[in-house]
Amino acid sequence: MVESANPDPTPRLPQLDVSRRSRKKSKTRNDLMEAGARLFETDGFDETTTADIAEAADVSQRTLFRHFETKEALLYGDMEELQLELRETLAARPADEPILDLLQEVMRSLADNFERNRKRRLLQARLAATYQSVSAYSRAVVQANWEREIIVAVAERLGVDPLDDPRPEIIAGATMSAIRFATRRWTAGRGRGDYVDLIVEALGAVGDLAGLERPAA
Amino acid sequence: MVESANPDPTPRLPQLDVSRRSRKKSKTRNDLMEAGARLFETDGFDETTTADIAEAADVSQRTLFRHFETKEALLYGDMEELQLELRETLAARPADEPILDLLQEVMRSLADNFERNRKRRLLQARLAATYQSVSAYSRAVVQANWEREIIVAVAERLGVDPLDDPRPEIIAGATMSAIRFATRRWTAGRGRGDYVDLIVEALGAVGDLAGLERPAA
Repeated sequence: MVESANPDPTPRLPQLDVSRRSRKKSKTRNDLMEAGARLFETDGFDETTTADIAEAADVSQRTLFRHFETKEALLYGDMEELQLELRETLAARPADEPILDLLQEVMRSLADNFERNRKRRLLQARLAATYQSVSAYSRAVVQANWEREIIVAVAERLGVDPLDDPRPEIIAGATMSAIRFATRRWTAGRGRGDYVDLIVEALGAVGDLAGLERPAA
Repeated sequence: MVESANPDPTPRLPQLDVSRRSRKKSKTRNDLMEAGARLFETDGFDETTTADIAEAADVSQRTLFRHFETKEALLYGDMEELQLELRETLAARPADEPILDLLQEVMRSLADNFERNRKRRLLQARLAATYQSVSAYSRAVVQANWEREIIVAVAERLGVDPLDDPRPEIIAGATMSAIRFATRRWTAGRGRGDYVDLIVEALGAVGDLAGLERPAA
């Protein structure tokens, strides 16, 4: 697994519980996420309470909090899935693949997921653009998690320790900015533009800037 | 001012209230920040309540909340100052300066501020490395603000709209990663290493990666 290269890097990879996949199938969890999405869509994020969501999903608030610590975590309830998908994509790539190709694969995998879950991803992005607490959660939790996956994978490819060599973190930071840029455009176009094109365009800018075609070691 | 180039960019620059400078001189505000820092240092962040801080500063909790919305905002109570300093540094640079020199100036200005406020900056960094909510605030508020300043300044230099051209955002993202990397090292060395050296080293890596020496247009 990707962790092994760095027993204790500060950019730590959390152990993702693969069994949580099955949790996705939990009807209660899904009902809560569906009810939340519906209410956020019609009433707004701040305007919807956990009591409203619990009631709409026909469970108690206590049950809701067993599944989700906060409303933000509920909105992004499928993000661990996506992170796992990202980690598997990264792990499946050949170790000697050029960094730029690896990043392209990350972005394709992400774009693919966005297309498959277009409605939910648009809602998340729209709410993040509107509500401070959602944007904070997206940056501090969701995006920070993706970034860590990329840092560790790039460090492995470069054969360096991400605590000693700043390049993996810098490449990951640039990549996350490209993702934010593409997502913002996709959201502004209400998901009608091709996310893959947008993201590949932004990635092109990383490639231009980074000269990553050159062997990076 | 830097805002003028982009009437309504999504990476928005907040209007910073320059008069808040004088607020820094507010004795109550300072007392609260000092009391907070002392208590966080000895008892820990989660372990300190706003009631503890208010009592130590000899004011009511209501007064505390008039100055700071949250404990995190209190810990980072001098960040608007730093952001203002950063904006002034950026605005004072020649418009035709190469991007890499501009970024170097940003980092020097930041490093300078870190050295001048070594004790407080170390405390902030240490708490961000320890407490999830502090790290989230640092990423979602403090760093996002710096990043926006850099995006707007770089877009101005490149003569592009940061909503249409991904490069300013990508350069800013890479720069923020370099800053995080250097800050982590500085903190790990308990502030003994020269922050300027660390940050210039990390910036070198951005430069290498980005080929920013080449005219970027």
